[in-house]
Amino acid sequence: MRMSELFLSTLREVPAEAETISHQLMLRAGIIRKLAAGVYSYLPLGYRVLRKVENIVREEMDSAGAQELLMSALLPAESYQASGRWDVFGANMFRLKDRNSRDFCLGPTHEEIFTDTVKSCLKSYRQLPVTLYQIQNKYRDESRPRFGIIRSREFVMKDAYSFDRTWEGLDESYDKMYHAYCKIFDRLGLDYIVVDADSGAMGGSGSQEFMVKSEVGEDTICHCPACQYAANVEKAECIAVELEKESALPREKIHTPNVKTIDELVNFLNTDSSKFVKTLIYSGGGKTVAVMVRGDREVNEVKLANHLGVSCDDLELAAPNVVCEVTGADVGFAGPIGLKIPVVMDKEVSFMSNFIVGANETDYHYINVNTEDFEAEVTDVRTIEPGDPCPKCGKPIVTTQGIEVGHIFKLGTKYTDALDCTYLDENGTPQTIIMGCYGIGVSRTIAAAIEQLSDENGIVWPLAIAPYQAIVVPVNVKDETQAKLAEEIYEQLKENSIEVLIDDRQERAGVKFKDADLIGIPVRITVGKKAADGICEFKFRSGGDAEDVSADEAVSKTIAYIKENLL
Amino acid sequence: MRMSELFLSTLREVPAEAETISHQLMLRAGIIRKLAAGVYSYLPLGYRVLRKVENIVREEMDSAGAQELLMSALLPAESYQASGRWDVFGANMFRLKDRNSRDFCLGPTHEEIFTDTVKSCLKSYRQLPVTLYQIQNKYRDESRPRFGIIRSREFVMKDAYSFDRTWEGLDESYDKMYHAYCKIFDRLGLDYIVVDADSGAMGGSGSQEFMVKSEVGEDTICHCPACQYAANVEKAECIAVELEKESALPREKIHTPNVKTIDELVNFLNTDSSKFVKTLIYSGGGKTVAVMVRGDREVNEVKLANHLGVSCDDLELAAPNVVCEVTGADVGFAGPIGLKIPVVMDKEVSFMSNFIVGANETDYHYINVNTEDFEAEVTDVRTIEPGDPCPKCGKPIVTTQGIEVGHIFKLGTKYTDALDCTYLDENGTPQTIIMGCYGIGVSRTIAAAIEQLSDENGIVWPLAIAPYQAIVVPVNVKDETQAKLAEEIYEQLKENSIEVLIDDRQERAGVKFKDADLIGIPVRITVGKKAADGICEFKFRSGGDAEDVSADEAVSKTIAYIKENLL
Repeated sequence: MRMSELFLSTLREVPAEAETISHQLMLRAGIIRKLAAGVYSYLPLGYRVLRKVENIVREEMDSAGAQELLMSALLPAESYQASGRWDVFGANMFRLKDRNSRDFCLGPTHEEIFTDTVKSCLKSYRQLPVTLYQIQNKYRDESRPRFGIIRSREFVMKDAYSFDRTWEGLDESYDKMYHAYCKIFDRLGLDYIVVDADSGAMGGSGSQEFMVKSEVGEDTICHCPACQYAANVEKAECIAVELEKESALPREKIHTPNVKTIDELVNFLNTDSSKFVKTLIYSGGGKTVAVMVRGDREVNEVKLANHLGVSCDDLELAAPNVVCEVTGADVGFAGPIGLKIPVVMDKEVSFMSNFIVGANETDYHYINVNTEDFEAEVTDVRTIEPGDPCPKCGKPIVTTQGIEVGHIFKLGTKYTDALDCTYLDENGTPQTIIMGCYGIGVSRTIAAAIEQLSDENGIVWPLAIAPYQAIVVPVNVKDETQAKLAEEIYEQLKENSIEVLIDDRQERAGVKFKDADLIGIPVRITVGKKAADGICEFKFRSGGDAEDVSADEAVSKTIAYIKENLL
Repeated sequence: MRMSELFLSTLREVPAEAETISHQLMLRAGIIRKLAAGVYSYLPLGYRVLRKVENIVREEMDSAGAQELLMSALLPAESYQASGRWDVFGANMFRLKDRNSRDFCLGPTHEEIFTDTVKSCLKSYRQLPVTLYQIQNKYRDESRPRFGIIRSREFVMKDAYSFDRTWEGLDESYDKMYHAYCKIFDRLGLDYIVVDADSGAMGGSGSQEFMVKSEVGEDTICHCPACQYAANVEKAECIAVELEKESALPREKIHTPNVKTIDELVNFLNTDSSKFVKTLIYSGGGKTVAVMVRGDREVNEVKLANHLGVSCDDLELAAPNVVCEVTGADVGFAGPIGLKIPVVMDKEVSFMSNFIVGANETDYHYINVNTEDFEAEVTDVRTIEPGDPCPKCGKPIVTTQGIEVGHIFKLGTKYTDALDCTYLDENGTPQTIIMGCYGIGVSRTIAAAIEQLSDENGIVWPLAIAPYQAIVVPVNVKDETQAKLAEEIYEQLKENSIEVLIDDRQERAGVKFKDADLIGIPVRITVGKKAADGICEFKFRSGGDAEDVSADEAVSKTIAYIKENLL
């Protein structure tokens, strides 16, 4: 493709609205264009990248025996109403009515529709197992779309669903997807980590996320350098260190006027935040509960929701008026003693002695409280922190941020039960089908690759998804010798099926080099003054020195590099 | 692919809701599945067909120099408001609001968004011309979705837009698309006809439609067997035969009680309908006009809208109260004499003498009316009919029904003017860009192929878009000799990159043959009792006798057939 004809508009300045490197570079390099908050178009270069990612995903899904189909994106409400998710999705779902006032949504994820389809098309045990997938636009009306296509409202997703007769069958289907996902992210050239993930309060029996490490990742991953354990912090179990109990000191109510936060309390009492226990009031699934964690810890709402058997979306900190009502005090003075609602206590707290809590009375706290002073359920309900013991080997955990690019999930019978999706077994008896679901954020993966692989000059595409594999840059197109040699190299590369650009624009060399770096083409062949001697410059975008080589060498080096590095 | 693993569910019965052959067969052969009125999923076989059509379209668009990108389907209202189409689309547009009550639509067609994109990305005349395209879901909330994916509410469309500096440039871009379209429909194996189409009242300077002839087509095409002229009837010019005027007889008002329709009038006056002139009252674009055509002719509303300079969507027969008001009579007695609104007279009427019209008085008509009796603009405003003279050569025209699968259109500056899309010329002066737009109904094309090529046993796919190219059918999979030979043939075909199915299901031979015919696989190789002698049966789905051949011959014949017939 000739750059003079390519529909491309690059920017030198960093667009003000873009916070992250990938978002900035995708706008600057003419990969995407914003149409509305969280809604983007893919320009020609970006679309080539998108299709390459799609094709790698498709090839590996097909190799793993999954069958591709395509559901509509416009979906009638009924199936979602049957599964209950019409309500669960809340404001995150784009909803609309057709001309006859019938309810539709734009599919956020298609569990219901695949289940429905299998229900209507599949009759016999002979047709199982089957794994179906699609690559399609998905829609979520995010409250805070951001980071370009990392969290957007229209995005491309590969979603797959497995249907099995038995739980062992589900394990096999799940393993196939696990291995396919590893191949996909390997081929994409990403540095990723597979972490144990939460599988929710209902229906799930196992779940893993594929994370690309990145500072802008919205997920926190904990990871053990010693034993390679890795999990989403939402999921990672906290091992409470068993402490010997001190002898109980006499409990005392103390006046703490206007001292509402842990920080204020630490200052006021001149002690350490680990001597305090926070009591937080939560509402969820129609219940109100108090949750106790050590003063310097955070409540893990996913663990709490699972413990309570409610959906995470349903759980939230109680409103101030509810807090006042259940504690009889202003916000900031909650504690376990005398509460009439259920109390959930983090395991770590159960080993503490003589700690400090709110007194359920405005401007008062108790000191020297012990677990005998109140009733509470004990469970793991805090979020793991760097330095905490690894739940597998006990060595200190480290944490890092990650972008979730894939998620595999043993769904079980949640949807097949809700939608009555059965098959007839050998005896003609209906049996519930067991499901797994498997997602890849296809568009998000592109942004993740850029976050991981860019440098100060622009994008550094992994070869497998680069929009073009090589670029030929004649320094001065008005110089006939240069132009001729550049065209020859360009034609030879094309004949060898290399996806190649030639920058035949009448631009200064500096502009061309800046653009070539910005759009991140893996191999650059520059044809300058040495063209008279048949010499050009060969350079990798990913680094290393430029080399002067003959035109033939430039071509053969390019071909060899691509053959060796394209998995 | 093994039929035992293929996610497929075929039906023997004709689904009650499907009126057309293609709709029936697509449901019966497991190509599509209905999710809601006019909303369909593509099952694995159907999705393979869809992708093949997409790829042929893509290859030819790329060859013609068009560049692919992908706009969002969820579109903010602003551009459509700027072009005026936010209102024009009316109830046909799916509209929704996001969580912040901002207006969005699901893109029905993307002229505005492409114009906007070119406006923001393109600065210099050096970047022109450019043709951009996408293959994408489109959305139209049809009042009467029907015929499966022929008129559906979510459908796959290829839409392309050319951007040129000059009208000559537009002609060149348009011609490239014309030739690309011919290649596409040739490769798809369709019998199509290119017809002149209406290009609307505004902005258009030329337009052609690609039509697949079919009884279920919603468009009527007129066609001249003598000179090959073809046009949509909306567009085709009517040549009025010049008649010698008779001498005017005395005009007379006659009492025609309760005689309101042409048929009633013909009976009442015992004469021919061609002696009458119908006068119809239309409203559109804020105007009310009377339109006169011969009694046995139909008003062509597209021609009328163009003549009046209003959008076709805006034009409609006036409401009865309006008719009464402008004529002073009940509906059924309108005529040109004494009307206070503009009168448009079809050219054919201008050659008539002593004709009959309504008298603008309830229960009265005039006889012996002549064109001198009233004032009217004369223009071509009727719809062409079979037997009418060809506007090119004068020989009789024939008409046929067609399914519109492609449309190319010289848009001109309608959108670039509305959205102020300019480029800077050599002198730095802003100039308006001139556009063309080019659509292919990708999903509809699949249905058109089935309408054209099916038989009583099922689909007969053109080779280029068949979901699989060949099917191997072991008559009895429990017979080891048969199973072994069938597997060998299957493996050999796969090794030769033939897309092949093997029907390894434990089903009766009749079921397998019926399914193979229904799903329309071009080549069938049956392995039955002669397997012991290494003999199988080779048969084309499209017809011809079955042949007994050796397994090797079956393989080589299949390969040869596919090589020769895949364009």
